[in-house]
Amino acid sequence: MNLNQNQLQNHNASLLARHQRKLAPWTGELENAEEVIQKLVDFQIAIPSWALGTGGTRFGRFPGGGEPRSLEEKMDDVGLLHALNRSSGAISLHIPWDVPSDVAAIQQRASQLGLRFDAVNSNTFQDQPDQALSYKFGSLQHADAAVRQQAIDHNIEVIRHGVALGSKSLTVWLSDGSCFPGQLNFRKAFSRTLESLQAIYAALPEDWKVFVEYKAFEPNFYSMTVGDWGSSYLYASKLGPKAYTLVDLGHHLPNANIEQIVAILLQEGKLGGFHFNDSKYGDDDLTVGSIRPYQLFLIFCELIEGMDARGMNHADDLGWMIDASHNVKDPLEDLLQSVEAIQLAYAQALLVDRAALEEAREANDVVRAQEILQDAFRTDVRPLVAEARLRAGGALNPLALFRQLDVRGQLIGERGLKTVATGL
Amino acid sequence: MNLNQNQLQNHNASLLARHQRKLAPWTGELENAEEVIQKLVDFQIAIPSWALGTGGTRFGRFPGGGEPRSLEEKMDDVGLLHALNRSSGAISLHIPWDVPSDVAAIQQRASQLGLRFDAVNSNTFQDQPDQALSYKFGSLQHADAAVRQQAIDHNIEVIRHGVALGSKSLTVWLSDGSCFPGQLNFRKAFSRTLESLQAIYAALPEDWKVFVEYKAFEPNFYSMTVGDWGSSYLYASKLGPKAYTLVDLGHHLPNANIEQIVAILLQEGKLGGFHFNDSKYGDDDLTVGSIRPYQLFLIFCELIEGMDARGMNHADDLGWMIDASHNVKDPLEDLLQSVEAIQLAYAQALLVDRAALEEAREANDVVRAQEILQDAFRTDVRPLVAEARLRAGGALNPLALFRQLDVRGQLIGERGLKTVATGL
Amino acid sequence: MNLNQNQLQNHNASLLARHQRKLAPWTGELENAEEVIQKLVDFQIAIPSWALGTGGTRFGRFPGGGEPRSLEEKMDDVGLLHALNRSSGAISLHIPWDVPSDVAAIQQRASQLGLRFDAVNSNTFQDQPDQALSYKFGSLQHADAAVRQQAIDHNIEVIRHGVALGSKSLTVWLSDGSCFPGQLNFRKAFSRTLESLQAIYAALPEDWKVFVEYKAFEPNFYSMTVGDWGSSYLYASKLGPKAYTLVDLGHHLPNANIEQIVAILLQEGKLGGFHFNDSKYGDDDLTVGSIRPYQLFLIFCELIEGMDARGMNHADDLGWMIDASHNVKDPLEDLLQSVEAIQLAYAQALLVDRAALEEAREANDVVRAQEILQDAFRTDVRPLVAEARLRAGGALNPLALFRQLDVRGQLIGERGLKTVATGL
Amino acid sequence: MNLNQNQLQNHNASLLARHQRKLAPWTGELENAEEVIQKLVDFQIAIPSWALGTGGTRFGRFPGGGEPRSLEEKMDDVGLLHALNRSSGAISLHIPWDVPSDVAAIQQRASQLGLRFDAVNSNTFQDQPDQALSYKFGSLQHADAAVRQQAIDHNIEVIRHGVALGSKSLTVWLSDGSCFPGQLNFRKAFSRTLESLQAIYAALPEDWKVFVEYKAFEPNFYSMTVGDWGSSYLYASKLGPKAYTLVDLGHHLPNANIEQIVAILLQEGKLGGFHFNDSKYGDDDLTVGSIRPYQLFLIFCELIEGMDARGMNHADDLGWMIDASHNVKDPLEDLLQSVEAIQLAYAQALLVDRAALEEAREANDVVRAQEILQDAFRTDVRPLVAEARLRAGGALNPLALFRQLDVRGQLIGERGLKTVATGL
Repeated sequence: MNLNQNQLQNHNASLLARHQRKLAPWTGELENAEEVIQKLVDFQIAIPSWALGTGGTRFGRFPGGGEPRSLEEKMDDVGLLHALNRSSGAISLHIPWDVPSDVAAIQQRASQLGLRFDAVNSNTFQDQPDQALSYKFGSLQHADAAVRQQAIDHNIEVIRHGVALGSKSLTVWLSDGSCFPGQLNFRKAFSRTLESLQAIYAALPEDWKVFVEYKAFEPNFYSMTVGDWGSSYLYASKLGPKAYTLVDLGHHLPNANIEQIVAILLQEGKLGGFHFNDSKYGDDDLTVGSIRPYQLFLIFCELIEGMDARGMNHADDLGWMIDASHNVKDPLEDLLQSVEAIQLAYAQALLVDRAALEEAREANDVVRAQEILQDAFRTDVRPLVAEARLRAGGALNPLALFRQLDVRGQLIGERGLKTVATGL
Repeated sequence: MNLNQNQLQNHNASLLARHQRKLAPWTGELENAEEVIQKLVDFQIAIPSWALGTGGTRFGRFPGGGEPRSLEEKMDDVGLLHALNRSSGAISLHIPWDVPSDVAAIQQRASQLGLRFDAVNSNTFQDQPDQALSYKFGSLQHADAAVRQQAIDHNIEVIRHGVALGSKSLTVWLSDGSCFPGQLNFRKAFSRTLESLQAIYAALPEDWKVFVEYKAFEPNFYSMTVGDWGSSYLYASKLGPKAYTLVDLGHHLPNANIEQIVAILLQEGKLGGFHFNDSKYGDDDLTVGSIRPYQLFLIFCELIEGMDARGMNHADDLGWMIDASHNVKDPLEDLLQSVEAIQLAYAQALLVDRAALEEAREANDVVRAQEILQDAFRTDVRPLVAEARLRAGGALNPLALFRQLDVRGQLIGERGLKTVATGL
Repeated sequence: MNLNQNQLQNHNASLLARHQRKLAPWTGELENAEEVIQKLVDFQIAIPSWALGTGGTRFGRFPGGGEPRSLEEKMDDVGLLHALNRSSGAISLHIPWDVPSDVAAIQQRASQLGLRFDAVNSNTFQDQPDQALSYKFGSLQHADAAVRQQAIDHNIEVIRHGVALGSKSLTVWLSDGSCFPGQLNFRKAFSRTLESLQAIYAALPEDWKVFVEYKAFEPNFYSMTVGDWGSSYLYASKLGPKAYTLVDLGHHLPNANIEQIVAILLQEGKLGGFHFNDSKYGDDDLTVGSIRPYQLFLIFCELIEGMDARGMNHADDLGWMIDASHNVKDPLEDLLQSVEAIQLAYAQALLVDRAALEEAREANDVVRAQEILQDAFRTDVRPLVAEARLRAGGALNPLALFRQLDVRGQLIGERGLKTVATGL
Repeated sequence: MNLNQNQLQNHNASLLARHQRKLAPWTGELENAEEVIQKLVDFQIAIPSWALGTGGTRFGRFPGGGEPRSLEEKMDDVGLLHALNRSSGAISLHIPWDVPSDVAAIQQRASQLGLRFDAVNSNTFQDQPDQALSYKFGSLQHADAAVRQQAIDHNIEVIRHGVALGSKSLTVWLSDGSCFPGQLNFRKAFSRTLESLQAIYAALPEDWKVFVEYKAFEPNFYSMTVGDWGSSYLYASKLGPKAYTLVDLGHHLPNANIEQIVAILLQEGKLGGFHFNDSKYGDDDLTVGSIRPYQLFLIFCELIEGMDARGMNHADDLGWMIDASHNVKDPLEDLLQSVEAIQLAYAQALLVDRAALEEAREANDVVRAQEILQDAFRTDVRPLVAEARLRAGGALNPLALFRQLDVRGQLIGERGLKTVATGL
């Protein structure tokens, strides 16, 4: 389905007066309100193709209806999100789930929907039906050189698909590791993984980046071969200037200070991208901002601080993507909530009085430093975010409009109640 | 396949001299060696039917070959384990995966294999193809009374199957909970779950027990309605004398002192059973004893202390079961390793000089108390466990014999390379 | 020093116009704004006497200046806080640090400062210089009955002091536990602790409560004898109707769902009180709301829901206290920040549309339930809290006024730069 | 007191027959028994001067008696331990607690006791009475350059003391960090710390090493400026070839895979040393091997594997030290238990059939790899360790002899019941 512009305009018209009343204090009080709004307009978050269907756990999966059955339908779903919030103008594909059959048609569709192709993702954590060798004991780390070569070849193929579509980066998330003490020679696993990554790196086009994603545990439960930012940094450093670390919020040990990791990686010029989600226990892949919104805000404070210090462009110089699993929610509604949570955190972080903050820090005025951050966080920035959406042509309240239009009902009507997204 | 008794005897004969040399110091030095050996002979650990196939994670599953395709073949596998180690003489069924079509035939097979039927397990954490209502938002806690009734009826049906086979207990593990703050009214969820459990309890035969298993997280990632031992204890207390708490080693928050929980529950007369596995991060379901063998030993120290204090019989008065997932190992080999690890911990705990330990405790002699426990733990009790196996008619080295006989190869020959166990 | 009413009024006058502008939308849009403001006025948070000086860690302590040197000066400090925010009208004493020498004079001072005496706290986690027997190996759990009796007597003496001052409750936090496996017989430790508590309970006046506080770890690092809510609940249940569980936010294992614990304890009629602080790793005792403000809000949602369900009075029927350690902040500034954070969370929780929330829950509308909570949390309720302060006679911005008046400088002038609060 | 050689010999004589009976199977069955014993003889673990007195927590401290009152008495205590176990032939000093007044006399005493001086340790986590500027807000990271310079100067002074005594390394453990979000500019804190370390590095003698120790949390509870191995590696890399990372077992987030960290650091040539202790929750500083002995064994497996791969000498090429706190045990008894636990883990790791292990790993035989490790761990190697002690001139059972001789009683007699070690 496509969003009807009349419906969108009617929706906005019905909410406009209230919105303007809420927004009014901003334009008066905040000097740089316009600048913040423009940054919000520019900020785009990629939607991964696998987040459009209902997720699940090892214990089971409870699918919803109307889920996309093809790459085309996945793009339509992202296009719909983007039409609603004007902040989801990119899609991240996963190979082999999303191999395009007709590249030109796919590109045309993307263009119509206003989407670009974000990082492409390889998959060596599962065996595909037609696969010669198994990844049961790893891929790029595997003891058998033939398995490693197969995984390298797959990554190069992923790059090839990405080039065809106009992607500029490859994300390598490895589930490689071990489940039991003794299973792995850690040094060999590291060296083999590095050599494999070097082979992939060699195939990277000049203007591409490769993101080495780390994860503390799961699906391996004793060790992960790219298990923390330190390891990822080592790989990325040894690979070269096109290699970066990718941070996924859910991939850490309990209580990790992720914002500090972000600051260090930015300082070293090695932060490449971000996967947003939220969690309480492990890689729970919950809606962004649903569990620890203050942490999200603190991370954005570091991102802005660190990017500005390097003269990086907020919108383009890091890869921003949602990576969550929607076990008990409508995936599209969940994504609307996630994008909004990211925008709110970004807006709040933009409001931080950084000059005053630095002054407080230099004076060891801990109380004041906290006040400055909390002042920004306690501010209700929803009017700013809504205004940015309005200016960009989106809906004042995307979720409300989604429900009002019964989008899910329409999708079920078009696609059926029992559909399974490829890759789920 | 059946274990050929000749092969077993040849295996034992070939290892006997070495075994006797290793055992010799025991019979000389340890006063109660005979008693320990007898307790080891008596101690039986139930094997769950779902542990006989390759497990997996939400990211994928890498099946092995020769996996059991039916309840009958699952029983054969447990029978084989039992023939090898003489300590796996019970099977725990999972409904609906293991509904017996011909009860009499199943009972006869069990009798031939020397197996009894341990606790039966209900499943309301997944939807079955023919199911009227979904458990997506819980079962016994569900807002809709009709879903709760469906789940109650299922549990009562499970009891009925258990009665037919001679089981004496029902294990209720609920995945009920919530993934997001706000999703659940905790009080209503508790009350509804309690009422549902009361309806199940009412259907329990006179000589049955019901085990209320708790789990801190997964597959729900914000709250679990039976989330810790305190909650489980509350349910069990309110239900009545036939209701008990069941402890699964992997179902706790990081760093929990499980042995203390065991001690308290035993003291309150509310510990009902145990699910053995090991883990480093969450419910990793790794081989028993593969990560924290000392913790396993400490738990057995509390079990023995607490059971003896209440005059309970080690072998019968608690339910002992392995509950693990074999993602990268042959399931049968993993189970052999798990049973051995349990036996070693049990044997070491039996060696603890408890009179001396109590004396040290009463004198606040912390150093001595630690020495006493470590003395037992550092002792190599493998000869004792092997001797127990030998006397009971098992193999001196079950795993070695399993490999020597190429059991897996034979099973693949019989059942095929690509089989899928029901329920996986 | 005393707060000069003129200064207070000048401060408020200077901020009034801006405050009224911020408040204006509330009185128009929020139906029950008046009710929320009144609840905020009524809500009082006790300040513990030990929170008025600089805290420290086992590695060191970096004292500030002007710290209170006596019970009288501690009361003055709380009086000052209360004069600023009108929400700290209670002080919680710690015996033996705060034994009053002249009860009548102390009561008169309290009356002048508008303070009442909250729960009294016993101390059996340290040895006092004149103490006959040591608590090195525990107090109420101790193997030696004489040590237990000494600890019981101490608690009874604490009650006596509390009665003299008008307290109505005793908080028992025990550091009892063990540092090493084997050190403790868990069952004996439990039974001895219970018996000791029963002796204390027997000395409790008719209209008193006793709070049994639990803690997962520290200062004992293997087991704590009152280690979790389940244990505390068991003790409180066995003691009787005057015994309750006390929850301290920092006393849990990583990732614990504290709001669910609150809900269960309220439902069972056994939640007695709260110790507020915040933390990232353990019992870090940081400023309330400085790390996980959303969790604090969720806890207040459960408190309100659960108290209302039982017809409890928010202001009186639970004990509310801050329990933090101010290692790098001015203690009084930290307390002002903490009280504000509590009020904000309370106000936000009061804003939750509970009827709509229940409706969403009953419909399993997870997205909507989350929206409802987030809507309240994302609202900037600072104007409401400031208005409540204003009406109660406090400062619109207590922290700003505290700095403007250079309160700390004055205290240093009065008391000196190098002072040590009793008990620190 | 000095250990009487007659008493030692009598002790050994009384246990010799039993020891030889236990040892006998080894010399027959284990090919490389002699080699293992020799490695155990050579392996020395440094004792830190601050571990000789009773430790404490922020809640209190329960001192024992007969604690050393001076550097000389601390050396005597280590000398005594070394006389008992012949494996504690090094002492690690802490400045300013252990500034030697007469270097020559100290050196002579060390020579008589058979001790060498291990790494010297600086202290910028506390303020000393005569100190000009405070470390309340950090030392090497401090916003104020004068504080940084003071901390740099202190470290250079520590090096000077170390040079005088013959130490060859400096351990820098920084408590620098922050307690609250906002307090610190992470990038500036990193840069300042790096610059300060560079100034210290510049003062390092040619043949010295500097160890940069990391810690996840405590005493700062939001961020630590050297917070994990990745950070420490970055500092050490930027500093140069004399800079290394130091791993303390208790300084990690929950569930960290420390053995993998060890393997990576060894591979990168940046592992410098080790601080041994054990813990369940945080930096609990419990007796080595008292909580997770299998983890200790796994770490030693990686140490041996990694050191051998680089041709490093086990005894000399890494710094080995115990770093624990003895809150409820006699410090000397605790240290005897700790050294024994380290030796057992080392011995078991030496027994691992590494050729077979590599073969299993290359074949992805996870079951076999686990069997190989567990086979070594389940072996009772106490006779080997005792034999090594015997050959080196120590006691067969140091702890038993310590008690038999009533060493603590004698120390109390010499030094008094109420003594306080410098620095505690």
